[in-house]
Amino acid sequence: MPQISRPTLEQVARHCGVSTATVSKVLNHRPDVAAATRSRVEAALEQLGYVPSTGPRTVNTLHEVHVVVNTVLNAYVMQALDGILSAAASERVEILVDSLDAHGEPSSAPLSQRWCEHAVRRGRAGVILVTAEMSPEQRRRLESLGIAVVAVDPVDPLDDGLISIGGANFTGGVQAAGHLIELGHTHFGFAGGHHRSPAWSERLHGFLSALRGCGLDADPSMILERQFDFEDGVQMGSQLLDAPEPPTAIFCGSDRSAQGVLEAARVRGLRVPEDLSVMGFDDTYATMPTAPALTTIRQPISEMGRTALRTLLQMHRGAGPDSHHVQLATQLVVRETTGAPAHMPVGPRSAD
Amino acid sequence: MPQISRPTLEQVARHCGVSTATVSKVLNHRPDVAAATRSRVEAALEQLGYVPSTGPRTVNTLHEVHVVVNTVLNAYVMQALDGILSAAASERVEILVDSLDAHGEPSSAPLSQRWCEHAVRRGRAGVILVTAEMSPEQRRRLESLGIAVVAVDPVDPLDDGLISIGGANFTGGVQAAGHLIELGHTHFGFAGGHHRSPAWSERLHGFLSALRGCGLDADPSMILERQFDFEDGVQMGSQLLDAPEPPTAIFCGSDRSAQGVLEAARVRGLRVPEDLSVMGFDDTYATMPTAPALTTIRQPISEMGRTALRTLLQMHRGAGPDSHHVQLATQLVVRETTGAPAHMPVGPRSAD
Repeated sequence: MPQISRPTLEQVARHCGVSTATVSKVLNHRPDVAAATRSRVEAALEQLGYVPSTGPRTVNTLHEVHVVVNTVLNAYVMQALDGILSAAASERVEILVDSLDAHGEPSSAPLSQRWCEHAVRRGRAGVILVTAEMSPEQRRRLESLGIAVVAVDPVDPLDDGLISIGGANFTGGVQAAGHLIELGHTHFGFAGGHHRSPAWSERLHGFLSALRGCGLDADPSMILERQFDFEDGVQMGSQLLDAPEPPTAIFCGSDRSAQGVLEAARVRGLRVPEDLSVMGFDDTYATMPTAPALTTIRQPISEMGRTALRTLLQMHRGAGPDSHHVQLATQLVVRETTGAPAHMPVGPRSAD
Repeated sequence: MPQISRPTLEQVARHCGVSTATVSKVLNHRPDVAAATRSRVEAALEQLGYVPSTGPRTVNTLHEVHVVVNTVLNAYVMQALDGILSAAASERVEILVDSLDAHGEPSSAPLSQRWCEHAVRRGRAGVILVTAEMSPEQRRRLESLGIAVVAVDPVDPLDDGLISIGGANFTGGVQAAGHLIELGHTHFGFAGGHHRSPAWSERLHGFLSALRGCGLDADPSMILERQFDFEDGVQMGSQLLDAPEPPTAIFCGSDRSAQGVLEAARVRGLRVPEDLSVMGFDDTYATMPTAPALTTIRQPISEMGRTALRTLLQMHRGAGPDSHHVQLATQLVVRETTGAPAHMPVGPRSAD
């Protein structure tokens, strides 16, 4: 059997009586083609069985990208979306937002077979996951359909099958510890995220590494781990502050947990930072209005969103990502919830 | 000259050798049509100059809706988006999100001529504005292109040229006043939104109407009006609390302003609610973690988002909206920032 030769862009253009530039514009979903011309070219592409020579990645410009989130009711997620939207505006990409929370029916939910097929049909070959997890099945499905994916935290840096953008969590933990040690604290509590969260694990171990570097240590019973939210922060804060020897400083898994710890301190009549120093992590736009204002580690969340979109576009142009996992620098932001401990130990703690 | 007759759906179907149902599916952007068939039908629709008999509103199903916001970094906006996404999931509509903030270049910004034309070309004829204002020019443009618009608060109920969904702000003000009067307060402060905000004006006047109903009045110098945010709340709270005769209760324009007022109280060493009662307005998902927890008037923001999408779809089906402005009920949510005033006046205030 003779090999069937693929039609070239030129053949399609000749078939339609248009320039190759016009065919290319249609392939790239550019808006500056008359609707009638577009339809004619699309029909010809179908009829002649045109296949982009090196797959869709190098030919199609991404013009619509799906952002899939667990929920929109989260300041972290919105900060990332803000970065994605600002990059999208300058790259002329449109953003569709899908929330897993919003879908009652799994068969049409984001990342389902039906959803993926529809996305491909509509010419969308890019997905950014923000704090949304993917099952192995969903991942295989996206891969087999040629849908590129970039994840924004929380992500597992060890997973090299997924392109991801995160904050430098370990360094953030080191920064937090450095600040509290410098203030004179030696007795720490931890109101962390879930122990299976890679982000929290990195933050905690960054903190512990800085302690070790100064000859200090953390009491394992002072390391509590729950979810990254307010209620869990209240509970962990209560448990730490009700301990026989409560910490003088608490490092929290997120700003929401820190807000919960501040609440636990408030109901106990503790002054912050005189009686207790509290540090958060994230510094989203929603962090500001705690009273007193929260000292925290800023994650470059908007920048992570921007980088995620640019990485997706780069992959789409066939250039490949710079690395399977990119970490952006965190920054110490000192506000009002940290200070020197009330009773600076002058010798070893047991001599107090 | 003979009148040119418009081709019917049947003629288009015959021309393509497909059923009218298939043509209808293509017109309605339904995904269950093979790509080759879709292209053929679209080319025929163009070639024959098919015009939907009663305009796009009755024929096209909306499959993609733009949500245009000022910024995504706002809990109110996200709460509305959450409602829109959940309605969209059950109506099988996809949501594109555009933020005015994200666009540096006005010529391609949301609601610009270019943006509108692109939206129409892509078959999107619906826009939901969330706390985003439209200029008269933008409004005329959308109208002339047949793009339906529904606005979610803040909106002007008097503007019958715009379909809008809001909360029952006046009733919310009545509810707030009723709660504080019942606790025994007689001396009120107001840390409101901008005086040109219809939402704030309604809230304030609902409050004042309830005062008048009880033979009470508000001191005009105690009515402060700025933006709905934290910093402005701090400033208004400071001004009210530093007055010669400070109020025992402050009604705030939003939860963010209330958070600012709480901060102003905190730095002055005032206990809430013992020394000062504070009420917010909105009750978004982000409201919870104030310390103490904020008493507020809940706006049904998610429901407003859901109603906005359903109204848009209803308009698109040609049914017309139920009313040009729909208000959904607010609800008093009593938490910890309100209580009886410390020194209940036993007679007229001057006798204290």
